[in-house]
Amino acid sequence: MSENKVHQRIRSEILNRSAYAAPSAVHGIKLDAMESPYGWPLAIQEKWLLALKDIHLNRYPSGTADDLRSDIRQWAGIDNSLDLILGNGSDELIQMIAMTLCDRDRPLLSTEPTFSMYRIISESVGSQYLDVPLTEDFDIDLNALLLAIERHDPGCIFFAYPNNPSGNLFDAKKIRAVAEAMNGLVIIDEAYFSYSRETFMPYIGTVGNLAVLRTFSKLGLAGLRLGFLVGPESWLREIDKVRLPYNISTLTQATGKFALSYSEWFDARVQAICSERERFGEEMRRLPQLVVYPSVANFFLIRFEASDTGVVVDKLLEDNIMIKNLDDQHEKLRGCVRVTVGTPDENDQFIQVLHKALG
Amino acid sequence: MSENKVHQRIRSEILNRSAYAAPSAVHGIKLDAMESPYGWPLAIQEKWLLALKDIHLNRYPSGTADDLRSDIRQWAGIDNSLDLILGNGSDELIQMIAMTLCDRDRPLLSTEPTFSMYRIISESVGSQYLDVPLTEDFDIDLNALLLAIERHDPGCIFFAYPNNPSGNLFDAKKIRAVAEAMNGLVIIDEAYFSYSRETFMPYIGTVGNLAVLRTFSKLGLAGLRLGFLVGPESWLREIDKVRLPYNISTLTQATGKFALSYSEWFDARVQAICSERERFGEEMRRLPQLVVYPSVANFFLIRFEASDTGVVVDKLLEDNIMIKNLDDQHEKLRGCVRVTVGTPDENDQFIQVLHKALG
Repeated sequence: MSENKVHQRIRSEILNRSAYAAPSAVHGIKLDAMESPYGWPLAIQEKWLLALKDIHLNRYPSGTADDLRSDIRQWAGIDNSLDLILGNGSDELIQMIAMTLCDRDRPLLSTEPTFSMYRIISESVGSQYLDVPLTEDFDIDLNALLLAIERHDPGCIFFAYPNNPSGNLFDAKKIRAVAEAMNGLVIIDEAYFSYSRETFMPYIGTVGNLAVLRTFSKLGLAGLRLGFLVGPESWLREIDKVRLPYNISTLTQATGKFALSYSEWFDARVQAICSERERFGEEMRRLPQLVVYPSVANFFLIRFEASDTGVVVDKLLEDNIMIKNLDDQHEKLRGCVRVTVGTPDENDQFIQVLHKALG
Repeated sequence: MSENKVHQRIRSEILNRSAYAAPSAVHGIKLDAMESPYGWPLAIQEKWLLALKDIHLNRYPSGTADDLRSDIRQWAGIDNSLDLILGNGSDELIQMIAMTLCDRDRPLLSTEPTFSMYRIISESVGSQYLDVPLTEDFDIDLNALLLAIERHDPGCIFFAYPNNPSGNLFDAKKIRAVAEAMNGLVIIDEAYFSYSRETFMPYIGTVGNLAVLRTFSKLGLAGLRLGFLVGPESWLREIDKVRLPYNISTLTQATGKFALSYSEWFDARVQAICSERERFGEEMRRLPQLVVYPSVANFFLIRFEASDTGVVVDKLLEDNIMIKNLDDQHEKLRGCVRVTVGTPDENDQFIQVLHKALG
């Protein structure tokens, strides 16, 4: 069958898109994907393998994952009146939300620049995608957003809180004003909650159309693919109906449960990364020719005032250091890159090579 | 926010649906979900844990899973000219196909009764769903199907081959006639290929709009959630664009790779199940008051001529034996249940209790 005949059958948003280019791992310093640089020490790794010993891979996983969900409830302090849905990464939850609440006439709304998957997933499921630009300092433009909500009555709105890639928290009062104006669901994507410690969780019960999205990825388990959505039962009951019945594998359920029994280990790593974030930020701010934006997450947005970001990123790659070039992602990100907080040693190496590259 | 206000925002196909009730495991004999009854022996289990020892869960998985895909290519004999996409179970691949090729004006087509996820997923992604009834002996009604294709020009059609729950292979000539008539993609869902050994894989390259879907679930790794889609690059390139970038976890990639290095062990279990299928079928056919349909899969469709299936299923449950009641699934399945081939001992216990229940 000719290419042309295939192309006639594909929606233009998909046809004109390239596949998402997930970066392949280099053997070097990986500061491009907001991963924790810390893996389990051998002693925990061994206990984890023991915990996997008795699972039966020939059987389907629990479809409801009640055991893991109950542990997550306790760990995250989720009120019993709220519902909890697990996803194969928060990506899958974003997809379920878009499938349930949005379509070509009912847009998915967000603010840009932000996490790119909101737009990508919206287009994949055939929803209309709308975005309202953030202000110059990457906060919500409340008037513009309220106008868009009034005009388009969106199915849902996503706020990355803190925002990726800018690293800041939006004004919480503005988010609450948006929730009041929305008939649809307001999703607070708290992927970086471990690092910001700011959450809308306590407001879910009172606001009525607010849900919180979290993930195990940034905490230190990106390879696990486990995200969760907390919200009012009236909304989540419907979203759960489009969940694939066995979406969380037995391995993920067992490993997630095990990880929560070592939450103190993760907490200590998060503490270390938060301290290092302060030191790393200060060190970078000593370099001339760049602006380091304030961050409450585990990454920094950096703007180069004179250098070509492509040249800088390539020079870093020559020394096996990966960061994310954002120059062509959004007009507000011209000259910008994003750098994950690594170990102190990784960050020092980054600064050294960057200094050379800028010099 | 009132229930009523939420309900106004949800598509009726979702609102009127119950969440998929994945059966919860009982401690007993599980013959309801086409699982292999055989788990890895301790020696293999231990080697598997060793294989997991060096993975880094703090890093994102490979987005392309090249390593595992290359092993699957070799194991399944996939021609290099064809594309290969992995899914979090074949469920996720069905979802990707529907998202890419179907919408409310472009139906997803199937034959009924068949695997229920084709309809469920089609409705979830907001596609129109069409089905053409199978004949009395559960084969394709070619004329009716060709008429539906001419009238509706579907985005794709799914054939379960062998069909679930009837256990038979459709007439391959009819499938090829359908492929010729379709502008959309024809997906041959070979979930039970290990047991039937019949495949459309050799025809993919020549037919042009044919793809083959397989899974590790029925082979003996239902807990892993790993399915794969093989097809022409022109179609799969587009489907891959809606894949979530990190849909296959590091654990699944490593475990899938490990499992393929023990493919002889799986082959031997499949052989054992196929032999037991013959014995089990013969034993059941000795019982009066029921029809056992021929099967090339690892399960049997059984029709009770006089008994109420609900009563039979409940009596089996009292003895901790789970099977699937199909009585209310489709008019062609009145009085029917589906039973997985278990171990010889499990099957004997099933027959014994069934005999009592029917008596």
